[in-house]
Amino acid sequence: MTVVVKALFFDVFGTLVDWRGSIAREARAVLEPRGYAIDWLAFADAWRGEYQGAMEEVRAGRIPFCKLDVLHRRNLDRILPSFDAGDAGEEDRRNLNMAWHRLDAWPDVPPALVRLKRKYLLAPVSNGNISLIADLARRNGFAWDAILGAEFSGDYKPKPAVYLDAAGAFDLAPECCLMVAAHSDDLVAAAAAGLRTAHVARPDEKGKGRGEAAPSIGVDFAARDLGDLAEKLAA
Amino acid sequence: MTVVVKALFFDVFGTLVDWRGSIAREARAVLEPRGYAIDWLAFADAWRGEYQGAMEEVRAGRIPFCKLDVLHRRNLDRILPSFDAGDAGEEDRRNLNMAWHRLDAWPDVPPALVRLKRKYLLAPVSNGNISLIADLARRNGFAWDAILGAEFSGDYKPKPAVYLDAAGAFDLAPECCLMVAAHSDDLVAAAAAGLRTAHVARPDEKGKGRGEAAPSIGVDFAARDLGDLAEKLAA
Repeated sequence: MTVVVKALFFDVFGTLVDWRGSIAREARAVLEPRGYAIDWLAFADAWRGEYQGAMEEVRAGRIPFCKLDVLHRRNLDRILPSFDAGDAGEEDRRNLNMAWHRLDAWPDVPPALVRLKRKYLLAPVSNGNISLIADLARRNGFAWDAILGAEFSGDYKPKPAVYLDAAGAFDLAPECCLMVAAHSDDLVAAAAAGLRTAHVARPDEKGKGRGEAAPSIGVDFAARDLGDLAEKLAA
Repeated sequence: MTVVVKALFFDVFGTLVDWRGSIAREARAVLEPRGYAIDWLAFADAWRGEYQGAMEEVRAGRIPFCKLDVLHRRNLDRILPSFDAGDAGEEDRRNLNMAWHRLDAWPDVPPALVRLKRKYLLAPVSNGNISLIADLARRNGFAWDAILGAEFSGDYKPKPAVYLDAAGAFDLAPECCLMVAAHSDDLVAAAAAGLRTAHVARPDEKGKGRGEAAPSIGVDFAARDLGDLAEKLAA
Protein backbone atom coordinates (compact mmCIF):
# COMPACT_ATOMS: atom_id res chain seq x y z
CA MET A 1 0.00 0.00 0.00
CA THR A 2 1.41 3.38 -0.91
CA VAL A 3 -0.94 5.22 1.46
CA VAL A 4 -0.05 4.55 5.07
CA VAL A 5 -2.91 3.34 7.21
CA LYS A 6 -2.77 4.97 10.63
CA ALA A 7 -6.13 4.13 12.18
CA LEU A 8 -8.36 1.08 12.22
CA PHE A 9 -12.10 1.54 12.61
CA PHE A 10 -14.21 -1.39 13.74
CA ASP A 11 -17.75 -2.45 13.23
CA VAL A 12 -18.78 -4.07 16.51
CA PHE A 13 -22.01 -6.14 16.34
CA GLY A 14 -21.12 -9.37 14.56
CA THR A 15 -17.58 -8.28 13.71
CA LEU A 16 -16.11 -8.12 17.23
CA VAL A 17 -18.89 -9.53 19.39
CA ASP A 18 -21.34 -12.41 19.10
CA TRP A 19 -24.62 -10.56 19.48
CA ARG A 20 -26.75 -13.62 18.64
CA GLY A 21 -25.42 -16.05 21.23
CA SER A 22 -25.11 -13.32 23.85
CA ILE A 23 -28.62 -11.93 23.38
CA ALA A 24 -30.10 -15.44 23.44
CA ARG A 25 -28.29 -16.15 26.72
CA GLU A 26 -29.23 -12.82 28.31
CA ALA A 27 -32.87 -13.01 27.20
CA ARG A 28 -33.13 -16.47 28.70
CA ALA A 29 -31.53 -15.30 31.95
CA VAL A 30 -34.13 -12.54 32.29
CA LEU A 31 -37.28 -14.21 30.98
CA GLU A 32 -37.00 -17.92 31.80
CA PRO A 33 -37.25 -17.35 35.58
CA ARG A 34 -40.52 -15.50 34.85
CA GLY A 35 -41.90 -18.66 33.26
CA TYR A 36 -41.51 -17.75 29.59
CA ALA A 37 -40.54 -20.64 27.30
CA ILE A 38 -39.11 -19.12 24.14
CA ASP A 39 -36.81 -20.15 21.29
CA TRP A 40 -34.04 -17.85 22.55
CA LEU A 41 -32.01 -17.79 19.34
CA ALA A 42 -35.14 -17.00 17.34
CA PHE A 43 -35.83 -14.22 19.84
CA ALA A 44 -32.33 -12.79 19.26
CA ASP A 45 -32.85 -13.02 15.49
CA ALA A 46 -36.23 -11.29 15.67
CA TRP A 47 -34.87 -8.45 17.81
CA ARG A 48 -31.90 -7.94 15.51
CA GLY A 49 -34.29 -8.19 12.56
CA GLU A 50 -35.86 -4.86 13.53
CA TYR A 51 -32.46 -3.13 13.63
CA GLN A 52 -32.03 -1.73 10.12
CA GLY A 53 -35.62 -0.54 9.79
CA ALA A 54 -35.41 1.40 13.04
CA MET A 55 -32.18 3.14 12.04
CA GLU A 56 -33.59 3.92 8.62
CA GLU A 57 -36.16 6.18 10.28
CA VAL A 58 -33.26 8.29 11.54
CA ARG A 59 -31.16 8.06 8.37
CA ALA A 60 -34.12 9.18 6.27
CA GLY A 61 -34.78 12.10 8.61
CA ARG A 62 -38.25 10.93 9.63
CA ILE A 63 -37.29 10.99 13.32
CA PRO A 64 -34.44 12.89 15.04
CA PHE A 65 -31.30 11.01 15.99
CA CYS A 66 -31.60 9.00 19.18
CA LYS A 67 -29.28 6.44 20.75
CA LEU A 68 -29.38 2.85 19.62
CA ASP A 69 -30.49 1.91 23.15
CA VAL A 70 -33.72 3.82 22.46
CA LEU A 71 -34.26 2.05 19.13
CA HIS A 72 -33.47 -1.33 20.72
CA ARG A 73 -36.12 -0.67 23.35
CA ARG A 74 -38.78 0.21 20.75
CA ASN A 75 -37.87 -2.91 18.82
CA LEU A 76 -38.06 -5.04 21.96
CA ASP A 77 -41.52 -3.74 22.77
CA ARG A 78 -42.54 -4.56 19.22
CA ILE A 79 -41.36 -8.18 19.22
CA LEU A 80 -42.27 -9.31 22.74
CA PRO A 81 -45.94 -10.02 21.85
CA SER A 82 -44.88 -12.32 18.97
CA PHE A 83 -43.14 -14.50 21.56
CA ASP A 84 -46.20 -14.49 23.85
CA ALA A 85 -44.29 -12.20 26.21
CA GLY A 86 -46.33 -9.05 25.73
CA ASP A 87 -47.03 -9.00 29.46
CA ALA A 88 -43.34 -8.68 30.41
CA GLY A 89 -42.96 -5.92 33.00
CA GLU A 90 -41.10 -2.62 32.77
CA GLU A 91 -38.18 -3.69 34.96
CA ASP A 92 -37.61 -6.83 32.89
CA ARG A 93 -37.80 -4.83 29.67
CA ARG A 94 -35.18 -2.38 30.92
CA ASN A 95 -32.93 -5.20 32.06
CA LEU A 96 -33.43 -7.02 28.75
CA ASN A 97 -32.56 -3.91 26.78
CA MET A 98 -29.26 -3.71 28.64
CA ALA A 99 -28.42 -7.17 27.26
CA TRP A 100 -26.84 -5.30 24.35
CA HIS A 101 -24.31 -3.90 26.85
CA ARG A 102 -23.39 -7.48 27.89
CA LEU A 103 -22.26 -9.03 24.61
CA ASP A 104 -19.21 -11.28 24.50
CA ALA A 105 -16.34 -10.92 22.05
CA TRP A 106 -15.49 -13.62 19.55
CA PRO A 107 -12.44 -15.34 21.11
CA ASP A 108 -9.98 -14.15 18.44
CA VAL A 109 -10.76 -10.48 19.10
CA PRO A 110 -9.15 -9.45 22.43
CA PRO A 111 -5.62 -10.72 21.68
CA ALA A 112 -5.72 -9.32 18.13
CA LEU A 113 -6.73 -5.87 19.36
CA VAL A 114 -3.77 -5.87 21.75
CA ARG A 115 -1.45 -6.59 18.82
CA LEU A 116 -3.10 -4.05 16.53
CA LYS A 117 -2.99 -1.30 19.14
CA ARG A 118 0.82 -1.36 19.11
CA LYS A 119 0.79 -0.15 15.53
CA TYR A 120 -2.50 1.68 14.90
CA LEU A 121 -5.00 4.04 16.45
CA LEU A 122 -8.07 1.94 17.19
CA ALA A 123 -11.67 3.11 17.41
CA PRO A 124 -15.06 1.47 17.16
CA VAL A 125 -17.14 3.04 14.39
CA SER A 126 -20.35 1.31 15.33
CA ASN A 127 -24.01 2.20 15.39
CA GLY A 128 -23.99 1.38 19.11
CA ASN A 129 -24.18 4.32 21.50
CA ILE A 130 -21.20 5.40 23.57
CA SER A 131 -22.38 3.88 26.87
CA LEU A 132 -23.08 0.56 25.18
CA ILE A 133 -19.70 0.49 23.46
CA ALA A 134 -17.95 1.54 26.68
CA ASP A 135 -19.66 -1.28 28.58
CA LEU A 136 -18.59 -3.81 25.92
CA ALA A 137 -15.04 -2.46 26.16
CA ARG A 138 -14.98 -2.95 29.95
CA ARG A 139 -16.49 -6.42 29.68
CA ASN A 140 -14.16 -7.66 26.96
CA GLY A 141 -11.00 -5.69 27.68
CA PHE A 142 -11.03 -3.62 24.48
CA ALA A 143 -8.64 -0.66 24.87
CA TRP A 144 -9.90 1.97 22.42
CA ASP A 145 -8.14 5.22 21.61
CA ALA A 146 -11.56 6.86 21.32
CA ILE A 147 -15.19 5.84 20.82
CA LEU A 148 -16.40 7.23 17.51
CA GLY A 149 -19.37 6.19 15.36
CA ALA A 150 -23.09 6.93 15.30
CA GLU A 151 -23.53 8.89 18.54
CA PHE A 152 -20.50 11.06 17.77
CA SER A 153 -21.90 11.81 14.31
CA GLY A 154 -25.59 12.03 15.19
CA ASP A 155 -26.51 9.66 12.36
CA TYR A 156 -26.26 5.96 11.55
CA LYS A 157 -24.01 3.97 9.24
CA PRO A 158 -23.91 3.57 6.31
CA LYS A 159 -24.35 7.37 6.05
CA PRO A 160 -20.97 8.72 4.84
CA ALA A 161 -20.70 11.29 7.64
CA VAL A 162 -20.20 8.54 10.22
CA TYR A 163 -17.03 7.30 8.49
CA LEU A 164 -15.78 10.77 7.59
CA ASP A 165 -16.33 12.21 11.07
CA ALA A 166 -14.31 9.34 12.52
CA ALA A 167 -11.38 10.08 10.20
CA GLY A 168 -11.69 13.76 11.01
CA ALA A 169 -11.62 13.14 14.76
CA PHE A 170 -8.16 11.61 14.32
CA ASP A 171 -7.06 14.38 11.92
CA LEU A 172 -6.65 11.79 9.17
CA ALA A 173 -7.54 11.68 5.51
CA PRO A 174 -10.10 8.90 4.85
CA GLU A 175 -7.53 6.87 2.89
CA CYS A 176 -5.37 6.63 6.02
CA CYS A 177 -8.21 4.82 7.81
CA LEU A 178 -9.10 1.16 7.46
CA MET A 179 -12.70 0.13 8.15
CA VAL A 180 -12.88 -3.42 9.53
CA ALA A 181 -16.21 -5.23 9.28
CA ALA A 182 -17.82 -8.62 8.72
CA HIS A 183 -20.48 -7.03 6.49
CA SER A 184 -19.88 -6.12 2.87
CA ASP A 185 -22.50 -3.34 2.88
CA ASP A 186 -20.62 -1.54 5.67
CA LEU A 187 -17.41 -1.80 3.64
CA VAL A 188 -19.07 -0.61 0.43
CA ALA A 189 -20.15 2.56 2.23
CA ALA A 190 -16.75 3.03 3.87
CA ALA A 191 -15.00 2.66 0.51
CA ALA A 192 -17.39 5.15 -1.08
CA ALA A 193 -16.36 7.61 1.65
CA GLY A 194 -12.71 7.04 0.71
CA LEU A 195 -11.62 4.65 3.46
CA ARG A 196 -9.62 1.46 3.06
CA THR A 197 -11.51 -1.75 3.79
CA ALA A 198 -10.87 -5.03 5.58
CA HIS A 199 -13.36 -7.87 5.72
CA VAL A 200 -13.36 -10.33 8.62
CA ALA A 201 -15.16 -13.62 7.99
CA ARG A 202 -17.95 -14.43 10.45
CA PRO A 203 -19.64 -17.29 8.58
CA ASP A 204 -21.83 -18.26 11.55
CA GLU A 205 -22.80 -14.77 12.74
CA LYS A 206 -26.56 -15.29 12.35
CA GLY A 207 -26.50 -19.06 12.89
CA LYS A 208 -24.63 -21.92 11.24
CA GLY A 209 -23.64 -20.80 7.75
CA ARG A 210 -25.69 -17.59 8.04
CA GLY A 211 -22.95 -15.01 7.95
CA GLU A 212 -20.38 -13.74 5.46
CA ALA A 213 -17.59 -16.27 4.89
CA ALA A 214 -16.03 -13.87 2.39
CA PRO A 215 -16.71 -10.35 1.15
CA SER A 216 -19.12 -9.97 -1.74
CA ILE A 217 -17.18 -6.94 -3.00
CA GLY A 218 -13.55 -6.01 -3.56
CA VAL A 219 -11.69 -5.13 -0.37
CA ASP A 220 -8.13 -4.20 0.54
CA PHE A 221 -7.85 -7.11 2.98
CA ALA A 222 -9.93 -10.25 3.48
CA ALA A 223 -9.20 -12.05 6.74
CA ARG A 224 -10.32 -15.33 8.30
CA ASP A 225 -10.53 -13.67 11.72
CA LEU A 226 -9.03 -10.69 13.53
CA GLY A 227 -5.79 -12.53 14.30
CA ASP A 228 -5.39 -13.19 10.58
CA LEU A 229 -5.96 -9.49 9.89
CA ALA A 230 -3.24 -8.62 12.42
CA GLU A 231 -0.90 -10.97 10.53
CA LYS A 232 -1.80 -9.38 7.20
CA LEU A 233 -1.17 -5.93 8.64
CA ALA A 234 2.15 -7.13 10.10
CA ALA A 235 1.04 -6.04 13.55
CA MET B 1 -23.17 11.15 49.77
CA THR B 2 -26.69 9.91 49.24
CA VAL B 3 -26.39 10.14 45.46
CA VAL B 4 -24.04 7.51 44.09
CA VAL B 5 -21.29 8.85 41.86
CA LYS B 6 -20.77 6.53 38.90
CA ALA B 7 -18.54 8.53 36.56
CA LEU B 8 -15.59 10.84 37.02
CA PHE B 9 -14.99 13.58 34.45
CA PHE B 10 -11.57 15.16 34.24
CA ASP B 11 -10.27 18.50 33.21
CA VAL B 12 -6.94 17.79 31.51
CA PHE B 13 -4.70 20.88 31.00
CA GLY B 14 -3.25 21.71 34.39
CA THR B 15 -5.31 19.13 36.27
CA LEU B 16 -3.81 15.95 34.80
CA VAL B 17 -0.91 17.23 32.73
CA ASP B 18 1.77 19.89 33.17
CA TRP B 19 1.15 22.01 30.09
CA ARG B 20 3.60 24.73 31.13
CA GLY B 21 6.72 22.64 31.65
CA SER B 22 5.89 20.43 28.66
CA ILE B 23 5.22 23.30 26.23
CA ALA B 24 8.39 25.08 27.34
CA ARG B 25 10.41 21.90 26.73
CA GLU B 26 8.79 21.19 23.35
CA ALA B 27 9.08 24.78 22.13
CA ARG B 28 12.75 24.77 23.01
CA ALA B 29 13.28 21.44 21.22
CA VAL B 30 11.77 22.86 18.03
CA LEU B 31 13.04 26.45 18.04
CA GLU B 32 16.43 26.41 19.77
CA PRO B 33 18.12 24.39 16.98
CA ARG B 34 16.85 27.12 14.59
CA GLY B 35 18.83 29.70 16.57
CA TYR B 36 16.02 31.28 18.54
CA ALA B 37 16.89 32.29 22.11
CA ILE B 38 13.63 32.63 24.01
CA ASP B 39 12.42 32.55 27.61
CA TRP B 40 10.69 29.20 27.08
CA LEU B 41 8.44 29.35 30.14
CA ALA B 42 7.35 32.86 29.21
CA PHE B 43 6.61 31.52 25.73
CA ALA B 44 4.42 28.77 27.21
CA ASP B 45 2.63 31.33 29.38
CA ALA B 46 2.03 33.66 26.44
CA TRP B 47 0.64 30.86 24.29
CA ARG B 48 -1.65 29.66 27.06
CA GLY B 49 -2.59 33.30 27.70
CA GLU B 50 -4.43 33.42 24.38
CA TYR B 51 -6.47 30.31 25.24
CA GLN B 52 -9.63 31.68 26.85
CA GLY B 53 -10.03 34.55 24.41
CA ALA B 54 -9.86 32.21 21.43
CA MET B 55 -12.49 29.86 22.85
CA GLU B 56 -14.71 32.79 23.76
CA GLU B 57 -15.09 33.53 20.03
CA VAL B 58 -16.71 30.11 19.69
CA ARG B 59 -18.70 30.22 22.92
CA ALA B 60 -20.15 33.60 21.97
CA GLY B 61 -21.09 32.30 18.53
CA ARG B 62 -18.87 34.75 16.63
CA ILE B 63 -17.09 31.87 14.85
CA PRO B 64 -18.26 28.27 14.28
CA PHE B 65 -16.87 25.54 16.48
CA CYS B 66 -13.42 24.36 15.48
CA LYS B 67 -10.96 22.04 17.21
CA LEU B 68 -8.65 23.40 19.87
CA ASP B 69 -5.72 22.48 17.59
CA VAL B 70 -6.99 25.15 15.18
CA LEU B 71 -7.28 27.75 17.93
CA HIS B 72 -3.84 26.84 19.27
CA ARG B 73 -2.37 27.40 15.82
CA ARG B 74 -3.97 30.83 15.47
CA ASN B 75 -2.68 31.74 18.92
CA LEU B 76 0.80 30.50 18.05
CA ASP B 77 0.89 32.63 14.92
CA ARG B 78 -0.18 35.59 17.02
CA ILE B 79 2.52 35.26 19.70
CA LEU B 80 5.56 34.25 17.64
CA PRO B 81 6.39 37.83 16.58
CA SER B 82 6.45 39.00 20.22
CA PHE B 83 9.29 36.52 20.79
CA ASP B 84 11.17 37.70 17.70
CA ALA B 85 10.23 34.44 15.99
CA GLY B 86 7.81 35.80 13.41
CA ASP B 87 9.98 34.27 10.69
CA ALA B 88 9.49 30.68 11.95
CA GLY B 89 8.58 28.43 9.02
CA GLU B 90 5.41 26.48 8.34
CA GLU B 91 6.89 23.08 9.20
CA ASP B 92 8.17 24.34 12.55
CA ARG B 93 4.83 25.94 13.32
CA ARG B 94 3.00 22.68 12.62
CA ASN B 95 5.44 20.72 14.73
CA LEU B 96 5.20 23.30 17.52
CA ASN B 97 1.42 23.15 17.47
CA MET B 98 1.59 19.41 18.03
CA ALA B 99 3.48 20.12 21.27
CA TRP B 100 0.02 20.14 22.91
CA HIS B 101 -0.23 16.44 21.98
CA ARG B 102 3.03 15.75 23.84
CA LEU B 103 2.26 16.96 27.36
CA ASP B 104 3.39 14.94 30.38
CA ALA B 105 1.16 13.92 33.27
CA TRP B 106 1.80 15.12 36.80
CA PRO B 107 3.44 12.09 38.48
CA ASP B 108 0.49 11.38 40.81
CA VAL B 109 -1.97 10.98 37.92
CA PRO B 110 -1.29 7.64 36.17
CA PRO B 111 -1.39 5.42 39.32
CA ALA B 112 -4.45 7.25 40.66
CA LEU B 113 -6.38 6.76 37.40
CA VAL B 114 -5.66 3.02 37.56
CA ARG B 115 -7.17 2.91 41.06
CA LEU B 116 -10.15 5.08 40.14
CA LYS B 117 -10.96 3.03 37.04
CA ARG B 118 -11.71 -0.02 39.20
CA LYS B 119 -14.67 1.81 40.72
CA TYR B 120 -15.79 4.50 38.26
CA LEU B 121 -16.35 5.23 34.61
CA LEU B 122 -13.61 7.69 33.62
CA ALA B 123 -13.70 10.26 30.85
CA PRO B 124 -11.82 13.44 30.07
CA VAL B 125 -14.20 16.39 29.74
CA SER B 126 -11.62 18.77 28.36
CA ASN B 127 -11.55 21.53 25.81
CA GLY B 128 -8.84 19.58 23.98
CA ASN B 129 -9.87 17.88 20.76
CA ILE B 130 -10.20 14.11 20.51
CA SER B 131 -6.92 13.49 18.66
CA LEU B 132 -5.02 15.60 21.18
CA ILE B 133 -6.61 13.84 24.16
CA ALA B 134 -6.05 10.43 22.53
CA ASP B 135 -2.35 11.25 22.00
CA LEU B 136 -2.00 12.32 25.64
CA ALA B 137 -3.68 9.06 26.71
CA ARG B 138 -1.20 6.99 24.68
CA ARG B 139 1.77 8.98 25.95
CA ASN B 140 0.79 8.82 29.62
CA GLY B 141 -1.06 5.52 29.80
CA PHE B 142 -4.48 6.98 30.61
CA ALA B 143 -7.16 4.30 30.03
CA TRP B 144 -10.38 6.22 29.37
CA ASP B 145 -13.81 4.68 29.02
CA ALA B 146 -14.60 7.32 26.39
CA ILE B 147 -13.32 10.71 25.28
CA LEU B 148 -16.02 13.30 25.89
CA GLY B 149 -15.74 17.10 26.15
CA ALA B 150 -15.63 20.00 23.72
CA GLU B 151 -15.34 18.20 20.38
CA PHE B 152 -18.13 15.78 21.30
CA SER B 153 -20.37 18.73 22.26
CA GLY B 154 -19.30 21.19 19.56
CA ASP B 155 -18.77 23.94 22.13
CA TYR B 156 -16.27 24.84 24.84
CA LYS B 157 -16.37 24.68 28.62
CA PRO B 158 -17.68 26.32 30.71
CA LYS B 159 -20.81 26.14 28.51
CA PRO B 160 -23.26 23.85 30.36
CA ALA B 161 -23.85 21.59 27.33
CA VAL B 162 -20.32 20.23 27.55
CA TYR B 163 -20.91 18.86 31.08
CA LEU B 164 -24.49 17.74 30.38
CA ASP B 165 -23.62 15.98 27.11
CA ALA B 166 -20.90 14.03 28.93
CA ALA B 167 -23.37 12.83 31.58
CA GLY B 168 -25.85 11.97 28.83
CA ALA B 169 -23.30 9.93 26.90
CA PHE B 170 -23.00 7.65 29.93
CA ASP B 171 -26.80 7.62 30.48
CA LEU B 172 -26.28 9.28 33.83
CA ALA B 173 -28.05 12.08 35.68
CA PRO B 174 -25.64 15.00 36.23
CA GLU B 175 -25.59 14.40 40.01
CA CYS B 176 -24.12 10.93 39.40
CA CYS B 177 -21.09 12.53 37.73
CA LEU B 178 -18.13 14.10 39.53
CA MET B 179 -16.18 16.81 37.69
CA VAL B 180 -12.51 16.81 38.72
CA ALA B 181 -10.50 19.97 38.05
CA ALA B 182 -7.74 22.18 39.41
CA HIS B 183 -9.71 25.29 38.42
CA SER B 184 -12.56 26.68 40.49
CA ASP B 185 -14.28 28.30 37.49
CA ASP B 186 -14.59 24.90 35.78
CA LEU B 187 -16.15 23.49 38.95
CA VAL B 188 -18.54 26.41 39.36
CA ALA B 189 -19.89 25.73 35.88
CA ALA B 190 -20.06 21.97 36.47
CA ALA B 191 -21.96 22.49 39.72
CA ALA B 192 -24.36 24.89 38.00
CA ALA B 193 -25.07 22.08 35.50
CA GLY B 194 -25.88 19.75 38.40
CA LEU B 195 -22.65 17.75 38.64
CA ARG B 196 -20.70 16.95 41.79
CA THR B 197 -17.31 18.61 42.09
CA ALA B 198 -13.80 17.68 43.18
CA HIS B 199 -10.90 20.12 43.31
CA VAL B 200 -7.33 18.93 42.89
CA ALA B 201 -4.64 21.33 44.13
CA ARG B 202 -2.05 22.35 41.52
CA PRO B 203 -0.41 25.26 43.36
CA ASP B 204 2.45 25.53 40.85
CA GLU B 205 0.48 25.05 37.61
CA LYS B 206 1.45 28.41 36.09
CA GLY B 207 4.79 28.71 37.89
CA LYS B 208 5.81 28.63 41.54
CA GLY B 209 2.77 29.57 43.61
CA ARG B 210 0.77 30.52 40.52
CA GLY B 211 -1.95 27.91 40.65
CA GLU B 212 -4.87 26.99 42.89
CA ALA B 213 -3.70 25.49 46.19
CA ALA B 214 -7.33 25.21 47.26
CA PRO B 215 -10.74 25.84 45.68
CA SER B 216 -12.15 29.34 45.93
CA ILE B 217 -15.67 27.93 46.07
CA GLY B 218 -17.49 25.14 47.89
CA VAL B 219 -16.84 21.68 46.46
CA ASP B 220 -17.81 18.13 47.33
CA PHE B 221 -14.17 17.07 47.61
CA ALA B 222 -10.93 19.02 47.89
CA ALA B 223 -7.82 16.92 47.31
CA ARG B 224 -4.08 17.53 47.56
CA ASP B 225 -3.49 15.51 44.39
CA LEU B 226 -5.23 12.75 42.44
CA GLY B 227 -3.97 10.01 44.77
CA ASP B 228 -5.55 11.89 47.65
CA LEU B 229 -8.83 12.09 45.71
CA ALA B 230 -8.70 8.31 45.16
CA GLU B 231 -8.30 7.89 48.93
CA LYS B 232 -11.24 10.21 49.60
CA LEU B 233 -13.38 8.27 47.12
CA ALA B 234 -12.28 4.99 48.73
CA ALA B 235 -11.03 3.76 45.38
